[in-house]
Amino acid sequence: MGASPRAVLARLDAARVRHSIAPGGFLSQYTGRVNPLIRDRDVDFLLYEVLHAEELCALPAFASHGRETFDPFIREARRLAREVLFPAYRPMDETPPRLKDGGVVVHERMRAMYPQLVALGLIAATRPEAVGGQQLPLTVSTFANAYLMAANLSAYGYVGLTTGAGHLIEAFGDAFLRETFLPKLYDGQWTGTMALTEPHAGSSLADVTTVATPAGDGTYRIRGAKIFISGGDHDLTENIVHMTLARIEGAPAGIKGVSLFAVPKHRPEGSALVPNDVAVAGVIHKIGWRGLPSLAMAYGDRNDCHGWLVGQEHRGISYMFQMMNEARLMVGLNAVATASVAYHEALEYARTRPQGRALNAKDPRTPQVPIVAHADVRRMLLRQKAIVEGGLALIATCARYADLAANGDAKSQQLLDLLTPVAKSFPAEKGFESNALALQIHGGYGYSSEYLLEAWLRDQKLNTIHEGTTGIQGLDLLGRKVVAGGGAPLQLLREEIERVCSSPGLDPAWTSATRRAFDRVVSLTMELGARGLSGDVEGMLLHSADYLELFSIVVIAWMWLAQAACALGKTDPFYEGKLSAAQYWIHTELPRVEQLAALCASAEDSYARVSPDAL
Amino acid sequence: MGASPRAVLARLDAARVRHSIAPGGFLSQYTGRVNPLIRDRDVDFLLYEVLHAEELCALPAFASHGRETFDPFIREARRLAREVLFPAYRPMDETPPRLKDGGVVVHERMRAMYPQLVALGLIAATRPEAVGGQQLPLTVSTFANAYLMAANLSAYGYVGLTTGAGHLIEAFGDAFLRETFLPKLYDGQWTGTMALTEPHAGSSLADVTTVATPAGDGTYRIRGAKIFISGGDHDLTENIVHMTLARIEGAPAGIKGVSLFAVPKHRPEGSALVPNDVAVAGVIHKIGWRGLPSLAMAYGDRNDCHGWLVGQEHRGISYMFQMMNEARLMVGLNAVATASVAYHEALEYARTRPQGRALNAKDPRTPQVPIVAHADVRRMLLRQKAIVEGGLALIATCARYADLAANGDAKSQQLLDLLTPVAKSFPAEKGFESNALALQIHGGYGYSSEYLLEAWLRDQKLNTIHEGTTGIQGLDLLGRKVVAGGGAPLQLLREEIERVCSSPGLDPAWTSATRRAFDRVVSLTMELGARGLSGDVEGMLLHSADYLELFSIVVIAWMWLAQAACALGKTDPFYEGKLSAAQYWIHTELPRVEQLAALCASAEDSYARVSPDAL
Repeated sequence: MGASPRAVLARLDAARVRHSIAPGGFLSQYTGRVNPLIRDRDVDFLLYEVLHAEELCALPAFASHGRETFDPFIREARRLAREVLFPAYRPMDETPPRLKDGGVVVHERMRAMYPQLVALGLIAATRPEAVGGQQLPLTVSTFANAYLMAANLSAYGYVGLTTGAGHLIEAFGDAFLRETFLPKLYDGQWTGTMALTEPHAGSSLADVTTVATPAGDGTYRIRGAKIFISGGDHDLTENIVHMTLARIEGAPAGIKGVSLFAVPKHRPEGSALVPNDVAVAGVIHKIGWRGLPSLAMAYGDRNDCHGWLVGQEHRGISYMFQMMNEARLMVGLNAVATASVAYHEALEYARTRPQGRALNAKDPRTPQVPIVAHADVRRMLLRQKAIVEGGLALIATCARYADLAANGDAKSQQLLDLLTPVAKSFPAEKGFESNALALQIHGGYGYSSEYLLEAWLRDQKLNTIHEGTTGIQGLDLLGRKVVAGGGAPLQLLREEIERVCSSPGLDPAWTSATRRAFDRVVSLTMELGARGLSGDVEGMLLHSADYLELFSIVVIAWMWLAQAACALGKTDPFYEGKLSAAQYWIHTELPRVEQLAALCASAEDSYARVSPDAL
Repeated sequence: MGASPRAVLARLDAARVRHSIAPGGFLSQYTGRVNPLIRDRDVDFLLYEVLHAEELCALPAFASHGRETFDPFIREARRLAREVLFPAYRPMDETPPRLKDGGVVVHERMRAMYPQLVALGLIAATRPEAVGGQQLPLTVSTFANAYLMAANLSAYGYVGLTTGAGHLIEAFGDAFLRETFLPKLYDGQWTGTMALTEPHAGSSLADVTTVATPAGDGTYRIRGAKIFISGGDHDLTENIVHMTLARIEGAPAGIKGVSLFAVPKHRPEGSALVPNDVAVAGVIHKIGWRGLPSLAMAYGDRNDCHGWLVGQEHRGISYMFQMMNEARLMVGLNAVATASVAYHEALEYARTRPQGRALNAKDPRTPQVPIVAHADVRRMLLRQKAIVEGGLALIATCARYADLAANGDAKSQQLLDLLTPVAKSFPAEKGFESNALALQIHGGYGYSSEYLLEAWLRDQKLNTIHEGTTGIQGLDLLGRKVVAGGGAPLQLLREEIERVCSSPGLDPAWTSATRRAFDRVVSLTMELGARGLSGDVEGMLLHSADYLELFSIVVIAWMWLAQAACALGKTDPFYEGKLSAAQYWIHTELPRVEQLAALCASAEDSYARVSPDAL
């Protein structure tokens, strides 16, 4: 018995080869079986058993849709993800885009994939038919996107950024921009970026210093420096539109003096496209998302960079904020997807890797058991499942609120606003833990770059940083969202949780624990809110990280109760898994709420008081 | 204001250059100031104020030592770490050892460093003068090692492995091995490795299948395959001794049939060294520790691999176990060191990176504040400090027990045995979180490989895997250590904690919380132990991961109380920091013990029951 190291290395090499050429879908490196990326059964379960997505078609906007249009869209995305995007993941990770003659050259596999992503209609999937979209619910496109992100989040990135840029122009741009720029973005001829960050202004966008000078012809001349611009240059399309925050000369200081501009790489002059003085200053060497370049950019070095104001002067930050929920949901979904692909890899490994024996069966002559037989390995797997599938349920639930809100439901808008910081940060923070557990299950092999566990761990780390760090999500939740409207959103959330808790058949111990935890959230929020109202804003927000964590635990418990309610009384192992994960979360995580709440309410002030010199 | 991206990139490039050539110590990439790796003041504090290391010199073994020998040894290691090892870290990470003509070629910087590490006398620092050592307390060498590991853990690895191999021969080898192999190892002419793992036998060493056949001349012929052998080949020295687990033909199955052999790369024949049929089968591409090769090795492909039995037949695993405490302390120290260097980098960054403004000072015309002014950033820093300095205190405390135990103190041996699983796993698990926080504080810059935060995060992940995974540490603690000797070690630990709690001046709230938490550990242990005695071993050990975590929280609280007791009534910011970290740990982590204990004692069985198909 026992493979020789040469055989092991040969197997690893074969896995690499398979990985890069796999014609019919990616094969698990260890067993040769397909990694599903996202479990198909879970997608159907969430869409049709938990969220009843077909009911969205009662809304006029989705009247022409139904399961007969949802399923083929998701199926095609899934196919593209498994057969095309996933096999290209490793080559793109190994050979990132490079700078050549002042421009960025992407991986050849990316050039081959981009038209296929466009052909799927992803960019404008959720946008109205009137602007060339498919008018699909975000609830549905979320699952399509999840497969693509799990397969190759960099490849998806070019599409997601373009959707975001187009949406800004669609919502706030004037007729010229909507007629000239928008169709090119939505049909994928051009791509888009979000050009917000500057070297000295990341989390603090109030400090943007890029300058826009009126040119007298309705356009502006832009001058300044941006950094960490994802997809800021590439050779996939003839043009790129940078949605750029800048300050019009003489504008007030702070966020109320920042405007939004569409700044193309090449500007249209008549029927021609001419260079628009947007230069690549350098490529950042990122540790993950390595198929999508992150650039430092210089605008207007030759004083010839034209920008088109989007919407009104000085309202750029407010426009960005209006798109922020969707952008943050997409980050959360990236995090879920990145944890999901690793979870499925770890699960397959655990089911097939023999090592050790049962605690009470020490006869060394018996064969070794697959490591999934060890309780602690199942613990690590069930924890990953709880995070991955709980996170996916939350993102999908938020997407449904977004669909309802976009069609006029104010309550859904309030719920979406409330839950977005959790939907962004929970998958990012716990997804990182989940990815680390997937690596841990692989032991020494997981520490090798022959397996992809380490690559997904690298990818995941960005999600706690971009689109507002976890620290900022905590401040947003406690300082803004839960105290909005006199606590009305929290009351709406109570109704949603109550609806699930009153489902027939749920274990009363589970529902009462969830209700009790939510009550604690409410009482804590009132206590902290009162502290803020009394003028002690620092004190109110001191434990915002702990508050975000306990709030997230309760939200995910709600998600697991909702899934458990749909799994009761069924015998399929799929439903058994749902009930096990629900039990795990409610027994293991929910009890932490009381302890974290006590901490938030306490006088614990160690890091408030400590002087920087004492650290 | 505001650096351009070109300026930022130029600064990053300059940092890289400085990093690789720095003549007088590594300079922080952001500010140009020196990263201390480990804080000197903390070393003196732990050694002389908390642990009273000079009192060890009352033992005959250390009678020739005193602070006048301890300090220069540490000082010289510190100098070498800062001036030589740290500047070589990035080049070695970027260009790992490579295979050439069947052998491994290391980085040229490593070849230049190795003689300097040897000259410091590191390899046999703690070994007796009679075998060429310096007979220093492990308590002291621990701090010297900490600097070197923080600077460049791969470089230290060659030395640490050689110490381990030599120590096995010193303890169990016959006269031939002690005369022929040992001096070469201890003076650095040869290096050593630990060759335990096989492709199918990692955590389960009972399943080792490498075979040893008696050759009739007292030696054995070895045939088999090993994998993940750190330092298994290189061109630093003329020879390498592999301490190899193998099964003598006809030996019983399981761990009681595994023997230990010294298998050199070249065997001595008369005055010559001849090739010994140990071949490199391949180099594993690791994600960290990239300066130290990890190899797949093939023994005896030509039936000419000679091995020398170490000690008696079939006792190899028991010998390894006798060295395991020290090996696991070294892993814990690696983890502390890797978290420490990142903590100091993050602290420097936070003190100097301007971003945002105070919550209650929103005037955008005021300058931005350094991010250390934000409470949540201080939270992340204080948490890192609590982990890093709490972990260092624990490793040093264990090293002191090891010194006392090696000189005949049975109680110290029991305490060392008890605490080793914590000293190994706490720094590894929480160190990984600490390294991730250090990266997080750097925002987008932390996600770039221009900074080293991501490299240290990669390095750290190995520590939860090698020398017994965290899962195995949990089983070792709960299934073996706390129930040993009828609970006597736990009683000794109570006395140690009580001694600290009775220090004058400590906040009674802190000491009573710690006592209460420890009482809970004891009552929980009795409850779980009874479950095991009743035959339900699976049930007893089901929550061993949670048990390990809560036990670790209490142990680290004890470490912070011990430091706080020495910091009381002093006004230096150094002592303020100690008191703040102690408060943080006791207020934030200690309350988790009750919740985790309730979980361990509960009937929560989600992952025990779940079937693999339902995951």
